[in-house]
Amino acid sequence: MAVGRFITFEGIDGSGKSTQARRLADRLQDVVLTREPGGSPGAEEIRKLVLTGDPDRWSAETEILLFTASRRDHLEKTIAPALEAGKTVISDRFADSTRVYQGATRGDLRHMVDKLHELMIGREPDLTFVIDMDPAVALERGLARKSGEDRFEDFGLPFQETLRHGFLALAKAHKRCVLIDGNRDIDDVAADVATQYAART
Amino acid sequence: MAVGRFITFEGIDGSGKSTQARRLADRLQDVVLTREPGGSPGAEEIRKLVLTGDPDRWSAETEILLFTASRRDHLEKTIAPALEAGKTVISDRFADSTRVYQGATRGDLRHMVDKLHELMIGREPDLTFVIDMDPAVALERGLARKSGEDRFEDFGLPFQETLRHGFLALAKAHKRCVLIDGNRDIDDVAADVATQYAART
Repeated sequence: MAVGRFITFEGIDGSGKSTQARRLADRLQDVVLTREPGGSPGAEEIRKLVLTGDPDRWSAETEILLFTASRRDHLEKTIAPALEAGKTVISDRFADSTRVYQGATRGDLRHMVDKLHELMIGREPDLTFVIDMDPAVALERGLARKSGEDRFEDFGLPFQETLRHGFLALAKAHKRCVLIDGNRDIDDVAADVATQYAART
Repeated sequence: MAVGRFITFEGIDGSGKSTQARRLADRLQDVVLTREPGGSPGAEEIRKLVLTGDPDRWSAETEILLFTASRRDHLEKTIAPALEAGKTVISDRFADSTRVYQGATRGDLRHMVDKLHELMIGREPDLTFVIDMDPAVALERGLARKSGEDRFEDFGLPFQETLRHGFLALAKAHKRCVLIDGNRDIDDVAADVATQYAART
């Protein structure tokens, strides 16, 4: 049996990537839809340890180690077994989110993040949809919610602009990335994703 | 102010290393005595996460990441600040225990452990006392207790023999290591450690 394909959706909060990940999953058969942070019970527990208590109690380096442990568990327990069973795996965020976020907050640790990924995760997606959207538009449309690793409320619009440019640079740098214009009707974006997916299968 | 020295004690469970670490600490001024696993509140919490629940719920790789996160916290919160304040730091176990333990259980992951240490910990002790003792003697004397990373009850005498040989190889491989014969009266061993310490200060 053929090994399945690993597809990720990336972009800033409010870009619509979670919706689009679900829409693509709905069109496919034998698909596992997952997400980060989390994606497996162990990964969720590690994540909880990071997020509870004083926000400054872990250094950036310790946090990176804990997030990598969480991703390793997600990969081992959820992603890899599904791929090996021939299923398509769609993940709402993966390592690219860490890279972009780290580049925007502690750029000096980007090298550490990359080396750690190479050593302990290794796997890259086969195909990554980067959903682009102007953060001001996302905020205006009420799409930006408090969630995951990028929180409008905590960091403000200028930081979201920095993240957006990080995602755009990522999309340019890797052949596996397809940049999708998210500033359109949800159905139009979904149709675009489906077309691009079909062209790359 | 001069930076303090970082001293570790290593050896199998029941070798007397914890006792000897305390004895040396008692002789010195401006000293911080710490230990692994643990050594800081954050490190203890990570350790607890690893040890609770089904023992098979984490893979060896995820465990290594969590232990490295724990060690990083111990280094940042306890060891490094004390050294910077000019204190002597004595740790009952450090990275060498992970190396020897990993070599004995999943030797194929030794390279991963080393790379991870290099990338995320970096620091080696200035001086390491490896307390050698025949595990059969340790067990006979009732010195071996259920504790830390090597548990007689869980792994048995042959495994302790393998660990012992791992510690002996370690002592040979690094100039910073001093091999101490632990098969003697506690006071004699302590006097030997004190002499060797003085010779290397």
